[in-house]
Amino acid sequence: MSGDNRAPVTVIGLGMMGAALAGAYLKAGHPTTVWNRSAAKAAPLVEQGARRATDVAEAVAASGIVVVCVFDYTVARSLLDPVRDSLAGKVIVNLTSGLPDEARETAAWAGDAGARYLDGYVMTVPPAVGLPQTLLFYGGDKEIFDAHEETLKVLGGNSVHLGTDPGIAALYDLALLGILWSTLTSALHGFALVGSENVPAAALMPFAEAWITHVVLPTVRGAAQQVDAGHYATDISTVELNAMGLPKMIKASEAQGVRADLMVPIKDFLEKRVADGHGADALASLIEVIRDGDR
Amino acid sequence: MSGDNRAPVTVIGLGMMGAALAGAYLKAGHPTTVWNRSAAKAAPLVEQGARRATDVAEAVAASGIVVVCVFDYTVARSLLDPVRDSLAGKVIVNLTSGLPDEARETAAWAGDAGARYLDGYVMTVPPAVGLPQTLLFYGGDKEIFDAHEETLKVLGGNSVHLGTDPGIAALYDLALLGILWSTLTSALHGFALVGSENVPAAALMPFAEAWITHVVLPTVRGAAQQVDAGHYATDISTVELNAMGLPKMIKASEAQGVRADLMVPIKDFLEKRVADGHGADALASLIEVIRDGDR
Repeated sequence: MSGDNRAPVTVIGLGMMGAALAGAYLKAGHPTTVWNRSAAKAAPLVEQGARRATDVAEAVAASGIVVVCVFDYTVARSLLDPVRDSLAGKVIVNLTSGLPDEARETAAWAGDAGARYLDGYVMTVPPAVGLPQTLLFYGGDKEIFDAHEETLKVLGGNSVHLGTDPGIAALYDLALLGILWSTLTSALHGFALVGSENVPAAALMPFAEAWITHVVLPTVRGAAQQVDAGHYATDISTVELNAMGLPKMIKASEAQGVRADLMVPIKDFLEKRVADGHGADALASLIEVIRDGDR
Repeated sequence: MSGDNRAPVTVIGLGMMGAALAGAYLKAGHPTTVWNRSAAKAAPLVEQGARRATDVAEAVAASGIVVVCVFDYTVARSLLDPVRDSLAGKVIVNLTSGLPDEARETAAWAGDAGARYLDGYVMTVPPAVGLPQTLLFYGGDKEIFDAHEETLKVLGGNSVHLGTDPGIAALYDLALLGILWSTLTSALHGFALVGSENVPAAALMPFAEAWITHVVLPTVRGAAQQVDAGHYATDISTVELNAMGLPKMIKASEAQGVRADLMVPIKDFLEKRVADGHGADALASLIEVIRDGDR
């Protein structure tokens, strides 16, 4: 789409993220219809040229592309189910956060209603919606992704179709969120450690930044290669060596009055791997323990 | 020191790291004496010009600066204690890894023996020893650090004195190791998640790299500022929102057959913070839970 042919788009859900999505479409010149349970949230968008639908049925009727960004998949389904009969031929772009299985179920439900379905994740904060570098993950109907790529990329120039599994974007999202949560909380643990000797976080931060960039990232990169190869050789940092280090780390943290809870599962993984006879392997081999859950 | 006046240095302990340290001194032209419990490890260094001491007493006698890099502080003390009477006036640079309290005790012990003491941590792998960008943390005797800075920087151009507390380098080391362990294992968790749908780690890695650089690092940077300010305001990602997300994350991980153990302490921290009435705070506020250990 370009020029005056920009596709009409409906955005359902005007929380911080939904409002940012609608704002990006308005800015890009798409005829934009919005709906939110509490209508007040539509006001700033209406000022920017959005059309406010009075109910979901009107919102869905207004556009061929219906972007949904609400609290969770249950809310998304509860909003769309009453207008199920009007969804045939619509493109549903569900940017609601949740679990892979919820995405898969919603895709099946949309398929039954005759709609085309993409399940996406906005991998940034609302203010970054619409920027060229902004990353969105998509899974599901590849044909629809390709057909509407330009319209989808209004929300973020780095919009990527990961696979036809509608749950794949949720899975990538979970993978990255786990890294964010673990890295952030372990950094807080580090700030607490130095803080126990009255050193401010700002004193550790430049070292943490260089460490993450020059040590952690290359280590993760190397681990990815070892995981894919299924070979975990190392001359330097073995599971066994780290299994000896972790209990000391926990003890030292507690000696400083700092909770070491984050380190306990890592210690457990290491000890399991040693007990299984793989103490000489590299740390990347811990994935063998991690993926040993009961499906 | 420069030209022909390079200070004689002794290196005790020739594991991979100790050998790299001795190698750096030899390369920089320092008269270098080495000692290791199993003498064979000295051979490649002797070929490069090192002098092999036949016992610790001879090793200590050979140089004013004695670098120690052995398995742990207990080993370090057990080696040096028998030659205690010859340590007066020596500079002990202990690059052995361990805990802050062990460093403090060893510093006190060295002080009693009349030695000057620095406790250091080499923040890289052996092959990077001696490079201009290589980071070493030091704590302890500031006067001695300043007096021997040039000699110390032979091991790494980015050698930093963090404070007079001899345990401070061990503390910074623990803080950064925690980040490495958590980030690496959470990345493995991510690789296991996408792997459960037959997606290779290599497919996630470019996104993980961009995510760590452009989302995680800025988040950690922002958290450092909030921690130092003691203010945890946020409009976007509250403790409460994440406390709702974590149990879902754990459930989704397990649904994919992937162990979510790493996420459990994070969920506990979030729930504790919500229970304490701080659900509207930013994630950085979790430090209030983490530093609430029993000292």
